[in-house]
Amino acid sequence: MSNTPLTLGAILYPGFEMLDMFGPLEMFSMIPPEQLTIHMVAEQAGPVPAAMGMAIGGPKTVADYGFDDAPELDILLLPGGFGTLPELENPRMLGFLSQRSKAAQITCSVCSGSALLAKAGVLDGYRATSNKQLFVLATSQSDKVTWVEEARWVDDGPVVTASGVSAGTDMALAIIQRLWGEEVARQTAEFAEYTWHEDADSDPFVSELNKAAGMLG
Amino acid sequence: MSNTPLTLGAILYPGFEMLDMFGPLEMFSMIPPEQLTIHMVAEQAGPVPAAMGMAIGGPKTVADYGFDDAPELDILLLPGGFGTLPELENPRMLGFLSQRSKAAQITCSVCSGSALLAKAGVLDGYRATSNKQLFVLATSQSDKVTWVEEARWVDDGPVVTASGVSAGTDMALAIIQRLWGEEVARQTAEFAEYTWHEDADSDPFVSELNKAAGMLG
Repeated sequence: MSNTPLTLGAILYPGFEMLDMFGPLEMFSMIPPEQLTIHMVAEQAGPVPAAMGMAIGGPKTVADYGFDDAPELDILLLPGGFGTLPELENPRMLGFLSQRSKAAQITCSVCSGSALLAKAGVLDGYRATSNKQLFVLATSQSDKVTWVEEARWVDDGPVVTASGVSAGTDMALAIIQRLWGEEVARQTAEFAEYTWHEDADSDPFVSELNKAAGMLG
Repeated sequence: MSNTPLTLGAILYPGFEMLDMFGPLEMFSMIPPEQLTIHMVAEQAGPVPAAMGMAIGGPKTVADYGFDDAPELDILLLPGGFGTLPELENPRMLGFLSQRSKAAQITCSVCSGSALLAKAGVLDGYRATSNKQLFVLATSQSDKVTWVEEARWVDDGPVVTASGVSAGTDMALAIIQRLWGEEVARQTAEFAEYTWHEDADSDPFVSELNKAAGMLG
């Protein structure tokens, strides 16, 4: 369990999926500020639009730091979303993820965020998952990752990756459990009147979507 | 079902609860823009900080419109959060809610947002609920409301109120179901890999919290 104060960097980019970011942040925001400080970070400080369906142009969240002046970050939280696609070609994003994950205690992602982590090499040698509707987007970024199709989230120590959107909230509670204990995680879920899916391996969304789509080929 | 394009006004104020806002917005953002336009509205346009636990100072979301220049709004979405308390004394907020709810097709709230609606008189004559940890905050605002303690959300036609935080996401799916049909609601939940709590009356969080706290007195 963590006795020293930690910092969490929530990484924004245009077209991030709202709930990928704010589901986990809702849970992390319940940790007292003397134990966890949350920083909003993007390539450049300023407003960053979320995804709006399959477009970029949703509500804007303000990044307080750019990649150049972000403070030390013990936890990196990377959402997925439609905006993942252009970011896969953004060397500044990939460089930031590669560099900062080395110094972080935990790097975690939600949904297609793991495609970015994979492309940045952060997941090499680790087990990881991604969202179910675009699983191949993640798996095609790296063959050095052991991809796990059926998982709500995969905790492999320094890297923790969640399946689609809502799974990020369950993952965040698991990280809270690891860092601050089970009772804190339970109280956090209860405060948010959230029914925590506690079993990382139980994935109600794997079968129909992927098997129907045949996306795993 | 709705065949005409609708507008949704997501109402921000300092100290709004993140997931109250972005859980529902994640779901509404899946409705194609030709059917639903989402506007971010606050007392004044500009960045509005979310709650961070029991304080104001979380991530900032940008309001594109102030109360004075907000466009016509068919759906009002009002989150709860720690910032509810000062807003109960804000005549501009209460006036905006009172005035705009008369023109709206649906006014909906999450968590302690229903305390604001009650104080503004929007819930008079209707059935409504609120979050379970501060139920009395809502009920003490108006005795002209039929308060329902055990409910995930309460749909009473033009006003729909949800219980705490996560319940807002279930309520949003119910509103989507009413306006655009059950299949759209199901696809939306599935896209977000979200296990929809479909039964408005089933409330897993009512008993322990309230009965233990004795808050309903």
